[in-house]
Amino acid sequence: MENGDGNEGTSAFHVPEWMIQFADQKQEFNKRPTKIGRRSLSRSISQSSTDSYSSAASYTDSSDDETSPRDKQQKNSKGSSDFCVKNIKQAEFGRREIEIAEQEMPALMALRKRAQGEKPLAGAKIVGCTHITAQTAVLMETLGALGAQCRWAACNIYSTLNEVAAALAENGFPVFAWKGESEDDFWWCIDRCVNVEGWQPNMILDDGGDLTHWIYKKYPNMFKKIKGIVEESVTGVHRLYQLSKAGKLCVPAMNVNDSVTKQKFDNLYCCRESILDGLKRTTDMMFGGKQVVVCGYGEVGKGCCAALKAMGSIVYVTEIDPICALQACMDGFRLVKLNEVIRQVDIVITCTGNKNVVTREHLDRMKNSCIVCNMGHSNTEIDVASLRTPELTWERVRSQVDHVIWPDGKRIVLLAEGRLLNLSCSTVPTFVLSITATTQALALIELYNAPEGRYKQDVYLLPKKMDEYVASLHLPTFDAHLTELTDEQAKYLGLNKNGPFKPNYYRY
Amino acid sequence: MENGDGNEGTSAFHVPEWMIQFADQKQEFNKRPTKIGRRSLSRSISQSSTDSYSSAASYTDSSDDETSPRDKQQKNSKGSSDFCVKNIKQAEFGRREIEIAEQEMPALMALRKRAQGEKPLAGAKIVGCTHITAQTAVLMETLGALGAQCRWAACNIYSTLNEVAAALAENGFPVFAWKGESEDDFWWCIDRCVNVEGWQPNMILDDGGDLTHWIYKKYPNMFKKIKGIVEESVTGVHRLYQLSKAGKLCVPAMNVNDSVTKQKFDNLYCCRESILDGLKRTTDMMFGGKQVVVCGYGEVGKGCCAALKAMGSIVYVTEIDPICALQACMDGFRLVKLNEVIRQVDIVITCTGNKNVVTREHLDRMKNSCIVCNMGHSNTEIDVASLRTPELTWERVRSQVDHVIWPDGKRIVLLAEGRLLNLSCSTVPTFVLSITATTQALALIELYNAPEGRYKQDVYLLPKKMDEYVASLHLPTFDAHLTELTDEQAKYLGLNKNGPFKPNYYRY
Amino acid sequence: MENGDGNEGTSAFHVPEWMIQFADQKQEFNKRPTKIGRRSLSRSISQSSTDSYSSAASYTDSSDDETSPRDKQQKNSKGSSDFCVKNIKQAEFGRREIEIAEQEMPALMALRKRAQGEKPLAGAKIVGCTHITAQTAVLMETLGALGAQCRWAACNIYSTLNEVAAALAENGFPVFAWKGESEDDFWWCIDRCVNVEGWQPNMILDDGGDLTHWIYKKYPNMFKKIKGIVEESVTGVHRLYQLSKAGKLCVPAMNVNDSVTKQKFDNLYCCRESILDGLKRTTDMMFGGKQVVVCGYGEVGKGCCAALKAMGSIVYVTEIDPICALQACMDGFRLVKLNEVIRQVDIVITCTGNKNVVTREHLDRMKNSCIVCNMGHSNTEIDVASLRTPELTWERVRSQVDHVIWPDGKRIVLLAEGRLLNLSCSTVPTFVLSITATTQALALIELYNAPEGRYKQDVYLLPKKMDEYVASLHLPTFDAHLTELTDEQAKYLGLNKNGPFKPNYYRY
Amino acid sequence: MENGDGNEGTSAFHVPEWMIQFADQKQEFNKRPTKIGRRSLSRSISQSSTDSYSSAASYTDSSDDETSPRDKQQKNSKGSSDFCVKNIKQAEFGRREIEIAEQEMPALMALRKRAQGEKPLAGAKIVGCTHITAQTAVLMETLGALGAQCRWAACNIYSTLNEVAAALAENGFPVFAWKGESEDDFWWCIDRCVNVEGWQPNMILDDGGDLTHWIYKKYPNMFKKIKGIVEESVTGVHRLYQLSKAGKLCVPAMNVNDSVTKQKFDNLYCCRESILDGLKRTTDMMFGGKQVVVCGYGEVGKGCCAALKAMGSIVYVTEIDPICALQACMDGFRLVKLNEVIRQVDIVITCTGNKNVVTREHLDRMKNSCIVCNMGHSNTEIDVASLRTPELTWERVRSQVDHVIWPDGKRIVLLAEGRLLNLSCSTVPTFVLSITATTQALALIELYNAPEGRYKQDVYLLPKKMDEYVASLHLPTFDAHLTELTDEQAKYLGLNKNGPFKPNYYRY
Repeated sequence: MENGDGNEGTSAFHVPEWMIQFADQKQEFNKRPTKIGRRSLSRSISQSSTDSYSSAASYTDSSDDETSPRDKQQKNSKGSSDFCVKNIKQAEFGRREIEIAEQEMPALMALRKRAQGEKPLAGAKIVGCTHITAQTAVLMETLGALGAQCRWAACNIYSTLNEVAAALAENGFPVFAWKGESEDDFWWCIDRCVNVEGWQPNMILDDGGDLTHWIYKKYPNMFKKIKGIVEESVTGVHRLYQLSKAGKLCVPAMNVNDSVTKQKFDNLYCCRESILDGLKRTTDMMFGGKQVVVCGYGEVGKGCCAALKAMGSIVYVTEIDPICALQACMDGFRLVKLNEVIRQVDIVITCTGNKNVVTREHLDRMKNSCIVCNMGHSNTEIDVASLRTPELTWERVRSQVDHVIWPDGKRIVLLAEGRLLNLSCSTVPTFVLSITATTQALALIELYNAPEGRYKQDVYLLPKKMDEYVASLHLPTFDAHLTELTDEQAKYLGLNKNGPFKPNYYRY
Repeated sequence: MENGDGNEGTSAFHVPEWMIQFADQKQEFNKRPTKIGRRSLSRSISQSSTDSYSSAASYTDSSDDETSPRDKQQKNSKGSSDFCVKNIKQAEFGRREIEIAEQEMPALMALRKRAQGEKPLAGAKIVGCTHITAQTAVLMETLGALGAQCRWAACNIYSTLNEVAAALAENGFPVFAWKGESEDDFWWCIDRCVNVEGWQPNMILDDGGDLTHWIYKKYPNMFKKIKGIVEESVTGVHRLYQLSKAGKLCVPAMNVNDSVTKQKFDNLYCCRESILDGLKRTTDMMFGGKQVVVCGYGEVGKGCCAALKAMGSIVYVTEIDPICALQACMDGFRLVKLNEVIRQVDIVITCTGNKNVVTREHLDRMKNSCIVCNMGHSNTEIDVASLRTPELTWERVRSQVDHVIWPDGKRIVLLAEGRLLNLSCSTVPTFVLSITATTQALALIELYNAPEGRYKQDVYLLPKKMDEYVASLHLPTFDAHLTELTDEQAKYLGLNKNGPFKPNYYRY
Repeated sequence: MENGDGNEGTSAFHVPEWMIQFADQKQEFNKRPTKIGRRSLSRSISQSSTDSYSSAASYTDSSDDETSPRDKQQKNSKGSSDFCVKNIKQAEFGRREIEIAEQEMPALMALRKRAQGEKPLAGAKIVGCTHITAQTAVLMETLGALGAQCRWAACNIYSTLNEVAAALAENGFPVFAWKGESEDDFWWCIDRCVNVEGWQPNMILDDGGDLTHWIYKKYPNMFKKIKGIVEESVTGVHRLYQLSKAGKLCVPAMNVNDSVTKQKFDNLYCCRESILDGLKRTTDMMFGGKQVVVCGYGEVGKGCCAALKAMGSIVYVTEIDPICALQACMDGFRLVKLNEVIRQVDIVITCTGNKNVVTREHLDRMKNSCIVCNMGHSNTEIDVASLRTPELTWERVRSQVDHVIWPDGKRIVLLAEGRLLNLSCSTVPTFVLSITATTQALALIELYNAPEGRYKQDVYLLPKKMDEYVASLHLPTFDAHLTELTDEQAKYLGLNKNGPFKPNYYRY
Repeated sequence: MENGDGNEGTSAFHVPEWMIQFADQKQEFNKRPTKIGRRSLSRSISQSSTDSYSSAASYTDSSDDETSPRDKQQKNSKGSSDFCVKNIKQAEFGRREIEIAEQEMPALMALRKRAQGEKPLAGAKIVGCTHITAQTAVLMETLGALGAQCRWAACNIYSTLNEVAAALAENGFPVFAWKGESEDDFWWCIDRCVNVEGWQPNMILDDGGDLTHWIYKKYPNMFKKIKGIVEESVTGVHRLYQLSKAGKLCVPAMNVNDSVTKQKFDNLYCCRESILDGLKRTTDMMFGGKQVVVCGYGEVGKGCCAALKAMGSIVYVTEIDPICALQACMDGFRLVKLNEVIRQVDIVITCTGNKNVVTREHLDRMKNSCIVCNMGHSNTEIDVASLRTPELTWERVRSQVDHVIWPDGKRIVLLAEGRLLNLSCSTVPTFVLSITATTQALALIELYNAPEGRYKQDVYLLPKKMDEYVASLHLPTFDAHLTELTDEQAKYLGLNKNGPFKPNYYRY
């Protein structure tokens, strides 16, 4: 998941430069200290696959075991060895985590129940590449309950919960993933999902586009049998639009990233809470009376601003888009250029999707103890690289918290080294992940069951009716009671009683 | 202006029944007591043209003069008599009102300044049919400054400010409008705008579609010279989509109603304030601790809910759309069916665009002193007609406030007889009208100057870049400072530095 | 009712200068144009008695009758002529207003019901001097139902609702009051209440201290029979503390102004709503994005700031008290000196109880169209007098709205000539008045029934238990359900189950 | 620090039962598993001294060293061994923590600067018993800089930060404290502070009253030289009022717990943030749309309600006090009895200071996954003991998080075993501790320097002027600029220009 929200959804216009950066980011990848020296299989790994995740912290301590899972021989209790996880013995612990997650993912559980008779995914062979967490496990087991066969790899080298992977493997899912993969491991795992004798995927569920990329590169013929791709991330969606534009997309793809429900939860609602959580866990600061500048007033920025205002902070906003700027004004925030307030603010938060929004010049002018963090799209919003100069001292004061100290003693507090605060220093609530997972499941069902020809070789948004269905599956959590249109009202409005209820351009 | 927001923007799908009602509403029109008995020229008058407006109260008392303006001989100081207003002598008072409005419409004034050299509307002959207020006058005089010739009628029989109409006439604008027109007057005025010797309009600015309708009906050949229609209202836009669907639209039309900026200001921002204002002015009630149910959680409902929550009310929401329903939940409102709370609430507010949302059955179950009002689209949301039964007593306690009394003494407080509270009992801030007027001006410029063929015989949304321009023209009011992209950032994002900054599907 | 809140409650320390101003304000009184030239009976009239009140607008038009009520011969339907009102024939209209008010004053109605058996005020002879409104009428008739005899005058020369006064007179209450009294009338009315053959008051209910002052001056012997004074206003309470300090207070007095419930409702809760209402009714402005400075962060300032922040304004605060200043910071407001922001703000609001908070120098530096108004204690907060200089032009643009125009064309918008905005341009909700009236009734009962010696010749706060009782009588309005302590819990907390529940210094 | 706020400040009336419980709580104390079996020196230890503190987590791992500090021989670098800490070698780490804290305690640092010339505590011999944290260290070193000699013990057996204690010892402060003291250790440490040859305290700084209690019990003669006691906690203050009532208080005592500034920060402002923080860190839940009941609407409850409402929760309130209940209504919360909503809420939060507010019966009726926690005064608000029955299973799922599982599978989520959530699962921001520490320092200065006879053998509130001074010292943190009264204004208000600015009964 990426927050990208301010401006990054703009590839509809041109080829944005940051799309081209995948190859280069490999360097950063290699700079990470790693004990494993195997030759890299590929240069092109998406940035998101190397972001670190706090929610990915292992529940149990397995640091004692340094053997690579690839070198281990493991079998689950049914005798299968078609998987590769850290330690199959952690399955029981992982199972409990999955069970807890099930309680908070009512929509998927409802889908399972409704699909007891019909199996809308009967015959589906889904290859997946996502974060491997308890919530993903609930999704995978739901897909299984709906009739699908699944093979799965991780979309991020750090984010796998080993215990959950073990539980899935124990339950018969061919899972290839562990926390702390090398880049070589990363591609090896993906390859093990698709390169199987006697099994060929007909659906792809991707998060970041690496799996799709790999099949394009290594097994292009596989697309002949593939009915469609479901892609969740900003990055992956961009890659798909690129392919489509270049005329190279050879199957329909569903962009679930931009579904209304997912967007609102990933960005506005989730960030409204995680900005507070991330700042508290890292700094224990008090929000009341603090001066904060939030760069970018998209959904993420709106969430951050609302939360901090409610906690008694004084919030300034910067924007490049006059419409969002006017919204900031009407919501009660002073719209400034960063330079105007940089000397006085206590906290700087970026939520733009842009690069170098906070430059070294800004950093030089901040006051002592200023906190700097990023809630946006990539780790380029704050020019962290510019702080790696000899005259500045870095001091790691806590996990995810660095003090960068100027020669005159001034120190700024840099969180998560400029990576996403809400992923690094907070957790994503299960409810938000439930929205995403349900959207993915419905998109798979839609693509798999659509009559031939409905979807061309193009990128589609989730049909609004399905978006509404995802929302409706989550209403019971809040004991929320929807009103139904009468026949007379439906006729008056010219609507079907079951939706969709809004025109496509409706903004919510 | 109509609030329509919940569901009514849905005609994209089917023909909604309420579109067909124009003819029928004539009956209601005729039921109004009127001294003028001329034969009606037409059956088809839009509903909005008979809504009453509080902001339309005349500034000066002219109730003593009951002569119909049509029967008067008036000339302005330059000797022209090409106008028909209540009393040309009120021009001076109206001029001051216009000058005050100019101070709060900085965007139009900026347009005038920028257009001092080039005249983007040179040669334009605009026929307009809108509310005639000080703000419209600023728009008209801006169009004039940009090079256009204008002729103008009122789109509502009550909303004309006579003093302003006089000031426009005095300034040489052929204006045909007064407060309290009969239906016959209404069409006569429109006709006087278009049926002129030696002058033929090439642009239409309409609000409600009556002017467009009239030309279609009476002077269809006129469309040969017309370059485009700019339409502001929900109703008028629907009519245009209807025409387009039926293949009968013979010129390009610009739907300015759905521009982002206008929508947010007309609905969310404006209603957030006017719900409080309308309730206070009519009832002097205290909001703190009151239980309120808001029907519909579109932009209007969101604004009402946010304002009342902030004032300490306890707010319940009803919705038919699960996505909006989930938003209500996340914003902290209990989502209920109306029946669940109807016995306990102190206030019922409709914002749906639907009909019969509040039925007689609901009204029967409300508690004593419950206040009922409508912030939605039409006057059909509350089934007011159902209250016109013999056993109920109506008592007018103030202007716009009726007590409807049940046989057992229970009384409900009905505001504005179920018509739009914010138009009847509050005022629309000039700033909101400035947004609308600027959007209209830019749409006229766009259509008038577009190279042949860019716009077909279809209905268009305002180009996003113009929408952004409208917003940017209003930022100086808030001393708001927009950030500019660097070249490097624009390249990174794949954006033009001057916008547009967002893809079309962006939801703001 | 006065808002005084910031600092004015400080007479506990010293003799504040503004206490001494009563005499001087007579001059201002005399400056008002008046047709009645009778000799003034007294120099000492409290300032509040000449404030104008919008809520005091007559319901019916009686402007045609210019005969002084003192010169009329009127009788009610029972033949009594022991009253002096504008027009006894307006009684029916006034009665309906009283009945409407009864519906919103549940606490007094509950008191009436509980007192059907016992009459806690049997034998009480209450002379009262308050605003004469529908709500006061409910109070008076409640006192009557509890057994008291009442005679009443108005505490303000403008605030009497003639129709209500007529209804009271018709119902047998000796009322002496009309809208638009001269100063001479004012004292004549008061005198008619106390100077009666065969009737001598034993309780005083005062609002502003004028009645108390009159008795002290003219009939000091009357105090021998008086059991106590209940005083509502800041001004009157100060006068009482003065008397007490000087050893001249000869009966117990109850300061109901500072009861918790009344304070919170008069100031925080009421002003939170009336600041918005007052600004809207006078200027129709939009709050979103506006920059506002609020001078004073007492209860009134807190209410104003919270409301404007919620509506999307950017709010700055000035304070002299570091504790309130720190509260402003923690609530998210920039604490500034007025000079720092005076050039940039759109609205200036005073809530200090201080004088000359906004000086001519500030007014000179405000930007064009800046709105200036007062929510504080007296009309001295804004130095309005300094604007009465030849180079400035005053233009009355609406009732209560003046444009003051500088030679360079800059205009500021002055509301209510610097008098209290919420009294002049808004209305006080009945619910707030219900709190006050109930507090007054309970204070009268307490003083009248207290065993000899419990209250000395001193000023007392309402006993906390009675304050709690007032609150509890208003809870049913909100369908609010109070929890009762168990015996075990009461013992644990060392509390009586029926309260009082807090120590005296508790701050709520 | 305790939150006590709802009702517990009520001992002014009677002897509350919970005062008598100190002795009994020893049983609970003994039930804790402990390796140390020494005989207890005393039966009477305050409850707060055994509460566990998350903020008290040691920075460095010293779990390997199980030797009791009492059995160690340690010297600081200057050769002194007049201290007893876990490990003097941790001093350097502790020093850095103190330095970081100094940056956020500007008021104490300002006091140090102002006192460079005069030493207001010259000659003072202060014995202290508080939590030993970096913030306390800043206080102690400030007292030293002001001229005082100090000896210090911990007021809680878990809360000592060993590294900070080491740094203080290294800096020459006789500190006797470590994390994980036994009850015997606890009293031994206190005794080492007071029972010294050639040194006798003349000031006491206490937090909980244990130190005061010990001196009363063991060294009553010491009071002859003691000039006063400064007490911070609710508990300790109650003990002092008890002594005073019983005529046994033999020196003046200053109740700093009830100072305005400290109360607002400890309760309203701090809890507004820590309720969110505590819930997030323990449960990672999403607040949006959740139904929450908050028991008690004192300052703590107000803070919790405001924060949760802002995050989109639906909040219900229970209250016993009608005034606070009415406040809840006006702030937009439904006032209910717990039973009315217990089946539907997702979270139950107690903030009452009462006992058994949440009973087993309530717990039995809660829905699955309901979260239960306490923000109030003591650990008695939730009847946790009632959950220790055989049919219920307890499962510790995280630190401070227990699932209590019913036979039918229902589980409730109990946080911190019903102890204070904000102390157990959140952290107290340094800024809040700065307020408290500054208040303590000023109280010590006041008592030490007061002319003989100003303070009797009684309990005093901090003089308002000092309270204001504490606030003013913290304003620069927010770049807040206080306005000064002009001479004319001060005269008008009857105030000294330097304060105090409010009467004593002012409620802020």
